[in-house]
Amino acid sequence: MPAFEPRDPGWAARVRASFARQTVMTTIGARLGRVAPGAVDIELPFRADLCQQHGFLHAGIVTIIADSSCGYAALSLMEPDAAVLTVEFKLNLLAPARGARLVARGRVTRPGRTLTICQAEVVALQDAAETPVATMLATLMALQGRPDLPQGL
Amino acid sequence: MPAFEPRDPGWAARVRASFARQTVMTTIGARLGRVAPGAVDIELPFRADLCQQHGFLHAGIVTIIADSSCGYAALSLMEPDAAVLTVEFKLNLLAPARGARLVARGRVTRPGRTLTICQAEVVALQDAAETPVATMLATLMALQGRPDLPQGL
Amino acid sequence: MPAFEPRDPGWAARVRASFARQTVMTTIGARLGRVAPGAVDIELPFRADLCQQHGFLHAGIVTIIADSSCGYAALSLMEPDAAVLTVEFKLNLLAPARGARLVARGRVTRPGRTLTICQAEVVALQDAAETPVATMLATLMALQGRPDLPQGL
Amino acid sequence: MPAFEPRDPGWAARVRASFARQTVMTTIGARLGRVAPGAVDIELPFRADLCQQHGFLHAGIVTIIADSSCGYAALSLMEPDAAVLTVEFKLNLLAPARGARLVARGRVTRPGRTLTICQAEVVALQDAAETPVATMLATLMALQGRPDLPQGL
Repeated sequence: MPAFEPRDPGWAARVRASFARQTVMTTIGARLGRVAPGAVDIELPFRADLCQQHGFLHAGIVTIIADSSCGYAALSLMEPDAAVLTVEFKLNLLAPARGARLVARGRVTRPGRTLTICQAEVVALQDAAETPVATMLATLMALQGRPDLPQGL
Repeated sequence: MPAFEPRDPGWAARVRASFARQTVMTTIGARLGRVAPGAVDIELPFRADLCQQHGFLHAGIVTIIADSSCGYAALSLMEPDAAVLTVEFKLNLLAPARGARLVARGRVTRPGRTLTICQAEVVALQDAAETPVATMLATLMALQGRPDLPQGL
Repeated sequence: MPAFEPRDPGWAARVRASFARQTVMTTIGARLGRVAPGAVDIELPFRADLCQQHGFLHAGIVTIIADSSCGYAALSLMEPDAAVLTVEFKLNLLAPARGARLVARGRVTRPGRTLTICQAEVVALQDAAETPVATMLATLMALQGRPDLPQGL
Repeated sequence: MPAFEPRDPGWAARVRASFARQTVMTTIGARLGRVAPGAVDIELPFRADLCQQHGFLHAGIVTIIADSSCGYAALSLMEPDAAVLTVEFKLNLLAPARGARLVARGRVTRPGRTLTICQAEVVALQDAAETPVATMLATLMALQGRPDLPQGL
C-alpha cells in the first residue's frame, strides 16, 4: 500500500471523535483498532445476539464494521472541514462469520478530492488462526461546506 | 414482477421460522412485514442507538434488513431442504436513513436452482411520506444436502 | 418511474452528439434507441466476433451498452456544461447473452447534483420473445468546470 | 497471495484454449499475459476505435479484460470437466483508461467447489509508468455435467 499524507493535522483525533459518535458501535460492542493514514481497523467480539439463522454473525453486522473501516480510512485523508459519506459498497462473503472476534481492515485504494475508493478485508480470529470472512469494495464521498452536518465527521 | 410458484408448500412457515431464529432482528427491533412468494418485506422502527455519526441509521443496519429481505424472498422459492446463503450484495445509498421507520422490500429478480438474484428497495416512512433510502442488488445461494446446517433455513 | 425535468433544454441533442463520439459503439455496431429524460436505450445486434468461449456475447460487451445506457440516462438530466463519468457499476448476469439482438435500458433511479444512481436492464430479443440477460446498478458523476474535457459530454 | 494447487494437470492448456475461443479478444486485440494457478493477466494495446466520448478506453472494454482475467484465474483452479461462468462483478474506475496499453491482473481471492471469488486490478502502462485504472471484485461459478457447453471452458 502506498503511504498517504493526511491533509488535516488533526486527522486521528477527528476519526476517533467521529467513531465515538456512532451509537451503533456501542450497541454492538465494536471498537477502533489501528488508526493510520488511509488505514483503519475495527474489531468486533462475537455476540450471540447479532446472528443470522445459522448462528453466524449477520452479513449486515459484518457490513457495519467493514463500511465504517472504509469510511474512516477515507476520512483520515480528507480536508479538515469535510464530512464523509458512503456512496455505495459491494460485499462478498467468503466464509461464515464465526470465531472469537472479527476485525475489519479498511484501506484506501485511491484517495480523491470528492470520491475515495476503499477496500476492506474482514477476518475472523479464533485462537491463533485468522480466516478471511468477507471482502468489501466501497465508494466514499467528501462533503464540504455543509454546516447542517456536524463538522469533521 | 412475474408471479412465482413456490416449490415448497410450507414456504411461508419456513420463512417465518428462519426469521425468528435471526437473533440480530430481535436485537435491533426489526419485524417481518409482507411475506409472499418471491417478495418479503422487513420493517425497522428508527432507534437512536443504531446510528452513524450524523444521527442517521448506519448503512450496515440498512443492510441487515435489505439483505434478509432478499434472502427470504429467495428462500420462499427454494426446495424444502435448502438453506439460503448470501453470496454477495451491492448497496447504493440514496438518502439519509431517517424517519419513523424503514421498510426493506426484497424481490426475486431471477430464481435459480443454485443461485437466485434479488433486488431490495429500502424506503423511509415519516407520516404519509415515503423516501427511497437505498437499493440493493444481491446474489443468494441454495445449499442442499448440508445436514450440518439447520434444515429449511 | 418518476417523470424527470431536464435542466438543459438541449439535453437530447447533447446525448446524441456524445453517443456519436463513442468510437466503440461504431466498432461493435451498437445504436441509440429510445432517448427520453432519465431513460436511454442502446441496441446491439448479435455478432459472432464479440463472443466469449461458449458463443455468447461477452459480459464486457453487455457492459458497454449497459454502462452507456446508464451514463446517457444520467447525462440527460445534468446541467448543460456537465460531463458524465462512470464511478462504478455492478452487473449481474441472468442468462446467456444470445439472440438476434440485445437492448440495454438505462434508467435514472435517483438524480443528484454530483452523483446520479442508475439501473439498467439488458434483454435479449429473438423473434417475439424477450429474455432478461443482465441487470446493472451504477453510480455516475457530473463533472463541471472541466475545460480539459469536451463540453457537454 | 496464497499458492494454489490446480486440480487439473492440464489447467494451463485449458485456459489458453478457452481464451483462443473468445472471438471478442481477437476483435479488440487483447492477448494473454501471465498464466499461473489462480493468476491470469490479459493485455490490451490502446486503440482509438474502442473509446468512449472523451477518447479513453470504454469502461466495457476495461471490463472485457478484467472479467476474463478473473474468469481464467478461477478456471485455472477448477476440475477438468468444469466450465466457468461469470455470476456478477463490480468495477470501480480509478482513472481514465489511456496509455500505450492496459493490463488486467485477475487473482483468485477464495477458490470454491461451486463459487470462486476473484479480484482484478487494471493498470495503464505508458513508458515506464504504471497507473491503476480500475479494480474489479467478481463472483465466478463452476458448471459441471453440462454437455451442452463445450467441455473445459
